Amino acid sequence: MDPAQSEAPAPRMSRRGLLALAGVGSAGAVAGLAAGLLTQDALAAAATPADAGTGDVVPFHGPTQAGITTAAQDRLHMAAFDVTTEDRAALIRLLKDWTAAAEAMSQGRETGATGAVDGPYDAPPEDTGEALGLSAGKLTVTFAFGAGLFEKDGKARFGLEGRRPDALIDLPHFPGDDLQANRSGGDIIVQACADDPQVAVHAIRNLARIGFGKARVRWSQLGFGRTSSTSRNQQTPRNLFGFKDGTNNLKAEDTDLLNEHVWAGPGTRSGEAWMQGGSYLVARRIRMHIEIWDRTSLREQEGLIGRTKSEGSPLSGGKEFTSPDFSLKGKDGEPLIGMDAHVRLAHADQNDGVRMLRRGYNYTDGSDGLGHLDAGLFFIAFVKDPRTHYVPMQMAMAKQDTLALEYLKHTSSALAAVPPGVQPGGFIGEGLFR
Amino acid sequence: MDPAQSEAPAPRMSRRGLLALAGVGSAGAVAGLAAGLLTQDALAAAATPADAGTGDVVPFHGPTQAGITTAAQDRLHMAAFDVTTEDRAALIRLLKDWTAAAEAMSQGRETGATGAVDGPYDAPPEDTGEALGLSAGKLTVTFAFGAGLFEKDGKARFGLEGRRPDALIDLPHFPGDDLQANRSGGDIIVQACADDPQVAVHAIRNLARIGFGKARVRWSQLGFGRTSSTSRNQQTPRNLFGFKDGTNNLKAEDTDLLNEHVWAGPGTRSGEAWMQGGSYLVARRIRMHIEIWDRTSLREQEGLIGRTKSEGSPLSGGKEFTSPDFSLKGKDGEPLIGMDAHVRLAHADQNDGVRMLRRGYNYTDGSDGLGHLDAGLFFIAFVKDPRTHYVPMQMAMAKQDTLALEYLKHTSSALAAVPPGVQPGGFIGEGLFR
Repeated sequence: MDPAQSEAPAPRMSRRGLLALAGVGSAGAVAGLAAGLLTQDALAAAATPADAGTGDVVPFHGPTQAGITTAAQDRLHMAAFDVTTEDRAALIRLLKDWTAAAEAMSQGRETGATGAVDGPYDAPPEDTGEALGLSAGKLTVTFAFGAGLFEKDGKARFGLEGRRPDALIDLPHFPGDDLQANRSGGDIIVQACADDPQVAVHAIRNLARIGFGKARVRWSQLGFGRTSSTSRNQQTPRNLFGFKDGTNNLKAEDTDLLNEHVWAGPGTRSGEAWMQGGSYLVARRIRMHIEIWDRTSLREQEGLIGRTKSEGSPLSGGKEFTSPDFSLKGKDGEPLIGMDAHVRLAHADQNDGVRMLRRGYNYTDGSDGLGHLDAGLFFIAFVKDPRTHYVPMQMAMAKQDTLALEYLKHTSSALAAVPPGVQPGGFIGEGLFR
Repeated sequence: MDPAQSEAPAPRMSRRGLLALAGVGSAGAVAGLAAGLLTQDALAAAATPADAGTGDVVPFHGPTQAGITTAAQDRLHMAAFDVTTEDRAALIRLLKDWTAAAEAMSQGRETGATGAVDGPYDAPPEDTGEALGLSAGKLTVTFAFGAGLFEKDGKARFGLEGRRPDALIDLPHFPGDDLQANRSGGDIIVQACADDPQVAVHAIRNLARIGFGKARVRWSQLGFGRTSSTSRNQQTPRNLFGFKDGTNNLKAEDTDLLNEHVWAGPGTRSGEAWMQGGSYLVARRIRMHIEIWDRTSLREQEGLIGRTKSEGSPLSGGKEFTSPDFSLKGKDGEPLIGMDAHVRLAHADQNDGVRMLRRGYNYTDGSDGLGHLDAGLFFIAFVKDPRTHYVPMQMAMAKQDTLALEYLKHTSSALAAVPPGVQPGGFIGEGLFR
């Protein structure tokens, strides 16, 4: 262990005053650690390097939004809001308020000027308080605009005539889709990711509170286990099929590939100027029939995926990060990676070279009423243009991928334009309103 | 920081062989930490003291089940199973298999003899694999038997005539109850708690896999933020009203009080011999109307709770753990803690001195379809006898507690008898089948 990392972090204020007040948080955590109290929160806080008091803070400002190439945090709360006001000024006010709140929460601060406990005693608090004493938890809050923000029932909204990006299509129906309308779509989609679910839930909940009277929650989804790495410093996690997922994902370090496949803006087919530094978010709730999967042989499981279950190596040989050899054949003359293997159908070589940055999570939402867990993968991807980077691949998989045909069911869908990052003093999506 | 804690833990096997294979887990985590990779998993593993390679393992065997007085972990997956077989031997086989699996998973091992990847290639794996490479995560698996295991439709099952404990009552209807049948009841209830939700979900999922053909999932519930401390070493967490919750909870250190209020068995009114070392589990899904709460003044919020929002101190003065003074009056002659304050109505002084060990979690399950988050508290309590230790208090609160009347709605309910702990070679609930 690096000795510097065993130093106590400098005490810092977070969630205004409460750390000092209650003796919890980073300073309290170190005390807790010394006393042998090995809570995860204490460890996370205590291990923050002394010279980086913001070790659990992901910067909010930048040319692109946080929460895309940010090393994928462990927990997700994503929500879609329907904007209920039709007033352009009210929408802009909402986006400004949400921007300020997202910035504050990303830094581990409360929302509003007076937070949960320091405001007037006879007014509702400006923060809901359940994150008091918790660290920033690497929170990122990422906003995206659905088609419904631009137009509804064929009519433009908020004076945004002609501003809907061409790439913000209505997704086609894919074979096997079984979409639930009340889990799909939404005018504004917000992805909150953090290492602590209470921090992520607090973020969405306070945006809902701030949006009262202007926006309402259409759907919300928790995710608990990231199913992709977005940094070469992360281990590849496992999905609920028990396989490593996202081995071949685009990573933050792949700057050229990110420019080619993830970032939208001028010079691209989705070239609206206000989308410079933006992207497109695809979210799909994919129910996994895990009970059927669990009664399938290891041979069939590996064949369907095209990788080993233990290490995630391609069935053509090598280790996890070895490139699959789709032409290599076994003694029986058949390709070692089957023609319908998921790794083949999802691979860039089979999809005109397109790549995506995946950022999905495992989910378990109670039971299905039929004796099974309602569990699966909440798929999230960021792409330059869904017309080239999502629709063709998903159409091919929905038609040919045995895994998709027999073990998966898409139960929700959303597509939204991710505006670029915010500069200090700016607000999310401001280019759209110029 | 204690220097001993910055030592690398002794490499240990966990999730059979995979740690060594993939270079992750405790040993890998230390390497990761040295390389500056501050994942929570790495931190949790690396901070395990060198002389306690089992720092993230909660012992499975003992006179009482783990997961009751165990310091409350951060995450919950609870599920209720309906037993579909009527064969006594099959039920006993299931309980034996579940016991073995729970013991293995509690130790960070896979289920079955060959786990996820080491079994015959043409058979379904004996573990589902999504916890490969993860630590034991302080997993506890706690089993409880609902009334439906003893009798259904007025007929005894499994030869258990006359064995249903008197204390395992059918809970009465409480005013305001809005219970969903498909989220309530269940023949066997399993509480899986861990510091990593993927570990807790893996546990329930593998029990469901093992139970195929004998038991099916009736309901399942995730929880993300513990709302009670069960050890004096833990900070009091906050619920989704933003208040500290469970300040006055029974703790593991209160051994006399636990004997008085939590543990069942001979010499008590619920005195069946097989319940020696057992308890009763009450689970209630309590929807919080957080949107209305968030528009309520700080004054009203504190008045309804009877404590300050910042520190959780009683409104009669002092600090968090100061005993409330229910008789103390303010200048206006009114009691500082109102007659309908939650802390008053829930306090032992108002409830014949009864106490409970609470072990609930915050939950957020999507949205309610009406523009709001479906969020609240998944209440869990362990009590000696629900007739004395739950029903009277809940009846009083349902009738008088303004908080309950205006801001809470009970949407599910379950009561189950928690058998005692398991000794090596035994199985859960074996006393019931003697």
